[in-house]
Amino acid sequence: MCAQLNPRFAQTFAPPVMEARRWLDGVDFPADRPLLNVSQAAPIDPPPEGLRRAIADSAMNNVDAHLYGPVLGMPELRVEVASQWSEAYGGTINESQVAITSGCNQAFAATLATLAGEGDEVILPTPWYFNHKMWLDMMGVGSIPLKTGAGLLPDPGHARALITDKTRAIALVSPNNPGGVEYPASLIRAFLELCREKGIALILDETYRDFDSRDGAPHDLFHDPDWHDTLIHLYSFSKAYRLTGHRVGAFIASEDRLFQAEKFLDTVAICPNQLGQHAALWGMQNLGDWVKGERLEILDRRAAIAENMPKLERWKLLGLGAYFAYVQHPFDLRSDVLAQKLVRDAGVLMLPGTMFMPDNDPAGGQQMRVAFANIDRTDIGILFDRLAAFST
Amino acid sequence: MCAQLNPRFAQTFAPPVMEARRWLDGVDFPADRPLLNVSQAAPIDPPPEGLRRAIADSAMNNVDAHLYGPVLGMPELRVEVASQWSEAYGGTINESQVAITSGCNQAFAATLATLAGEGDEVILPTPWYFNHKMWLDMMGVGSIPLKTGAGLLPDPGHARALITDKTRAIALVSPNNPGGVEYPASLIRAFLELCREKGIALILDETYRDFDSRDGAPHDLFHDPDWHDTLIHLYSFSKAYRLTGHRVGAFIASEDRLFQAEKFLDTVAICPNQLGQHAALWGMQNLGDWVKGERLEILDRRAAIAENMPKLERWKLLGLGAYFAYVQHPFDLRSDVLAQKLVRDAGVLMLPGTMFMPDNDPAGGQQMRVAFANIDRTDIGILFDRLAAFST
Repeated sequence: MCAQLNPRFAQTFAPPVMEARRWLDGVDFPADRPLLNVSQAAPIDPPPEGLRRAIADSAMNNVDAHLYGPVLGMPELRVEVASQWSEAYGGTINESQVAITSGCNQAFAATLATLAGEGDEVILPTPWYFNHKMWLDMMGVGSIPLKTGAGLLPDPGHARALITDKTRAIALVSPNNPGGVEYPASLIRAFLELCREKGIALILDETYRDFDSRDGAPHDLFHDPDWHDTLIHLYSFSKAYRLTGHRVGAFIASEDRLFQAEKFLDTVAICPNQLGQHAALWGMQNLGDWVKGERLEILDRRAAIAENMPKLERWKLLGLGAYFAYVQHPFDLRSDVLAQKLVRDAGVLMLPGTMFMPDNDPAGGQQMRVAFANIDRTDIGILFDRLAAFST
Repeated sequence: MCAQLNPRFAQTFAPPVMEARRWLDGVDFPADRPLLNVSQAAPIDPPPEGLRRAIADSAMNNVDAHLYGPVLGMPELRVEVASQWSEAYGGTINESQVAITSGCNQAFAATLATLAGEGDEVILPTPWYFNHKMWLDMMGVGSIPLKTGAGLLPDPGHARALITDKTRAIALVSPNNPGGVEYPASLIRAFLELCREKGIALILDETYRDFDSRDGAPHDLFHDPDWHDTLIHLYSFSKAYRLTGHRVGAFIASEDRLFQAEKFLDTVAICPNQLGQHAALWGMQNLGDWVKGERLEILDRRAAIAENMPKLERWKLLGLGAYFAYVQHPFDLRSDVLAQKLVRDAGVLMLPGTMFMPDNDPAGGQQMRVAFANIDRTDIGILFDRLAAFST
């Protein structure tokens, strides 16, 4: 007799990025048409040399870099985040309200777990970030889809109608993954007020904040001295500093929330890895100007996407920003089938909208996400030429 | 109105190691009586220089060390574990049955989550490893205590009587944390057979296997070609290679279990940090002899504990092995109160038995765990002198 399976796991899907990687198995990409991989939102270059050297120096000379640290993260890094965030958002964030995690997904898992368990519900705008949906599935928490309209913006009024006595949080991602769209400050404010009124949490995932096209703070929630009664802010060091493989993220929430999340993080991680935290701290203290340059490069690639769109007469651009373009394709094929065909016939790997949508929402079948941060202007031109030449 | 708390979190306790650290706040330790910290099972020295250099080299020269890797871990490391484990245990373990995690706690959380959710039950021998208990609490899974008798050995017959239709697993730790005791191979085999008969999983946490006093394999479960229908083996790279701050662990289970656990690991970690995995691989390939020397040193410290015990006339040694001595104190004080008094009056930090026991089991109040791996023979002598001189 075999040990059994928690049925909540059978109900969720396999990790989409890993599934998409398997689509590459057995496919040959000729030298004159190499794979254009726009599937994952991740830098493919290593961090700049100064940061690599800082990591190597820590490994050689810093004993603490090899030992357990505090569950909630390295104190100096918590202080640095509190300080830089207070300045950037024009609010007051104390280091005791900052926790470091092993990546931003863990920040979501940890904070969500403190809010909701079996039988509870969380509202997610669609298209959603699939890892949020997977975590909710495995925890027995219901994901309530909030359909977005034009511009992929969620409507607080529609959200209000979905709130029940089971609802524990609304989770927003801005700039959005997969949609790319940057939520207006007033929209984020409206969600905060709705959540506060209803006594639920607003989780605001700002993983892509460093690549927002707008100057200044993207919202004013931290101006409110009581922000921590409702807001949980998530962040990732992976993108800005090219530290994806080091697994360092953060969240900002009330001290009470951190006290509870510490229990989760202790059992799931004990502490974030120390070298990664040293790297993030060094990056924050030394790479401010470099990150600004990275942002300009991403904004230029974003512009290149917009400039190339006219090549695709029958496609439609639904959202564009941060690392992502979210598009509607013109073919009479479900996007998950199309995506595999694009690998073979066009040498392009992108994720289908079905991965970001509930199974019962047919819109996903017509949509695709292009994670363009890894390809430069030249390759963006080639990408669109290949898509323009493609037909089913 | 404030965002609310998942009530399952209020029901579990704060991380014991962090709580114990707080007991040090505001206490002065005079220069002639420095703190003896025997609270945490962790090396306090960095890895050997060759390993530190290998980490630094990877950071400087290996692009992959900075990028996302596969959710289930670096393929080369999975192959190495499969190969070394197959040889050490005399069985057949395929690399497709090995997953790398961000530490061994994550291996427990991930595999347990695939087995059990709200309303299910898991049997844990007492004294238990507190992080196992915390994780079960937060997941809404009941922890069913299995009292151990003389020698801290759990009885499969007693376990059988505790199994209900809600039971999903029995979790054993050998060598045991906190008890130190090494479970006989025949006892582990009896638990496997019980679990197989009942269709539940046997989780066997062998974090401390590198410091087992017995030569050869500690059990024969991997001889069984069907081990994977029941057995889930957990391991940590933290102790053997002094990589606690790098967060690298592993588990070995069926491919079906890995397929499900991959969903959990993707949402909680995306992947184990890459530099830590490079470090673990380098250690496995280069530090075999060094680890043997570390083991002999730990065994010598263990012997020093046994030799010093007679200094404590009224204390009793309940278990001894790996990193731990588990003792019964003679005082008319609950162990959690005693532990704080020992910090102030004897300059000794150790964890109380209350942290390893259900609240309703009074035995915890009489017990203490001594994590002796960090202190040498001289300090072990001093530790026992201080305890012998201590009175309430």
